[in-house]
Amino acid sequence: MSILIIAPDRDLTAFSQRLAGLLPQQRILLWPEGQREAEVAVVWQPPVGWHQKLPRLRLIHSYGAGVEGLLADPQLPDVPLCRMVEPALAVAMARYLVGQVLADQLRLTELAAAQCQHQWIDGSPRGGRRVVILGRGAMGEPAGLLLRQLGFEVRWWRTVATANDELAGIEALQLALADCDYLINTLPLTAATDGLLNVALWQQAHGLVVINVGRGRHLVADDLLTALASGQIRRAVLDVFEQEPLPVGHPLWAHPQISISPHCSALTDPLGAAAVVADNVRRWQQGLPLCHLVDRQHGY
Amino acid sequence: MSILIIAPDRDLTAFSQRLAGLLPQQRILLWPEGQREAEVAVVWQPPVGWHQKLPRLRLIHSYGAGVEGLLADPQLPDVPLCRMVEPALAVAMARYLVGQVLADQLRLTELAAAQCQHQWIDGSPRGGRRVVILGRGAMGEPAGLLLRQLGFEVRWWRTVATANDELAGIEALQLALADCDYLINTLPLTAATDGLLNVALWQQAHGLVVINVGRGRHLVADDLLTALASGQIRRAVLDVFEQEPLPVGHPLWAHPQISISPHCSALTDPLGAAAVVADNVRRWQQGLPLCHLVDRQHGY
Repeated sequence: MSILIIAPDRDLTAFSQRLAGLLPQQRILLWPEGQREAEVAVVWQPPVGWHQKLPRLRLIHSYGAGVEGLLADPQLPDVPLCRMVEPALAVAMARYLVGQVLADQLRLTELAAAQCQHQWIDGSPRGGRRVVILGRGAMGEPAGLLLRQLGFEVRWWRTVATANDELAGIEALQLALADCDYLINTLPLTAATDGLLNVALWQQAHGLVVINVGRGRHLVADDLLTALASGQIRRAVLDVFEQEPLPVGHPLWAHPQISISPHCSALTDPLGAAAVVADNVRRWQQGLPLCHLVDRQHGY
Repeated sequence: MSILIIAPDRDLTAFSQRLAGLLPQQRILLWPEGQREAEVAVVWQPPVGWHQKLPRLRLIHSYGAGVEGLLADPQLPDVPLCRMVEPALAVAMARYLVGQVLADQLRLTELAAAQCQHQWIDGSPRGGRRVVILGRGAMGEPAGLLLRQLGFEVRWWRTVATANDELAGIEALQLALADCDYLINTLPLTAATDGLLNVALWQQAHGLVVINVGRGRHLVADDLLTALASGQIRRAVLDVFEQEPLPVGHPLWAHPQISISPHCSALTDPLGAAAVVADNVRRWQQGLPLCHLVDRQHGY
């Protein structure tokens, strides 16, 4: 069997070598070779029309956690599609989210400014520790559990609420934001979540910090700027953008209450990813259920 | 019985009210009143000679975690002395330590500088995650356990090592620093730890980040500057100083690889502190062992 890795803009040598080691019986090919024989494709931002050249394609595995780019392709073959969920990615995301929340709590930017002036200020950390996390999957849950251990009150917002610490529905979310210090978005981008972070959500917020590690399209940038001006939002930490790289001169770059990180909150670990793909390939060969199979109706 | 609160530079109203609520049978007094009758003193940076005016003093309770200032007084009465160990203080310290380590990992300072230039850089977090924590008490243990959950390799350095993840002795510490990314000092200041963070410790380090939340006297400032120049230390995060406030013009303020915070890593929570003091007062009245009784020989 042939597994084709399609990642034209990324060096996946470490991944392909580990995958070859884990699946010694299979041929591991790198795009553009092997298109006619490939049955499995592992893809990361593949070129337009990539699948039209793969007549034997029977399984698609995303190298990244988000699959909205693949699903946006109306011609995508109707074969099983899996997304990437691997432990190192979840821990890296927890480091990013916990780190951003704590850096805000500790007022590190203010301390650095005071240091420049040799000023011994009252450096007491901020007190607000109510957190709402959008999504309770591999990205949203570990960070929330860690924040809870660090003294934060954490609730999750999901499609369906099944526990006391969970919310569901737009009204419940709007109400929760009246009483919330940090809103963290870890949702996948789907028709239901596109543009979710818009003016309607900020109506009852005051002094909220918004952290977006989902997708750029979750957040309506103009509404964010309005809510920052009104004080509904105190600060935004953005790792994802509608257009990446964020263009020079974009108003998000220069806003004093916005912190930009260049889509680096959590990168797939090549070795962990190889284990996930190898496991799924074996499952597929043996007719077992695939892990992290995408439900195209739900979009993730 | 009379309990006298001596904290001339700090407003402990919330603490004294809560203490009065918890100990309704006792008189709660505020310095300078009640000196002649006070049997218990709760002290925070008390004035020189404070105890000479308290003829009935039988128990001293520190309002802060460190007692080296009290013990430095050769006239300190030979009555039981307790230090402050309260849960909120430990969680606050964990927030500070985890937050400082993660802010360094995420390179938040570099990201902010790139943002000023509208530069979409490679923002990948740092990779080094080996941590040594000096001290495994109420301050050092929770932060280490949290860092471990966040993917860090954590070891503690103690007077006596009793577990696999513990080190003891200067040679073992020097050796560990050859292979360490973050050194966190949470030790109490005693004759044995005074000046511990000196040139001898940095010999085998390379690119180390040093975080000091113990006491300023633990760290030899000149040795730090030398080790920063040589690259043995990459960065220092300092919350405590020999002289506080750190004087304007002091070389630590202006060093680009030093981050200063104004002794704010963990402040005693007044309500939690009242519970600790009330518990110890009850224990003392009932002849039970006191919690967090200071061993004057060891200095903490």
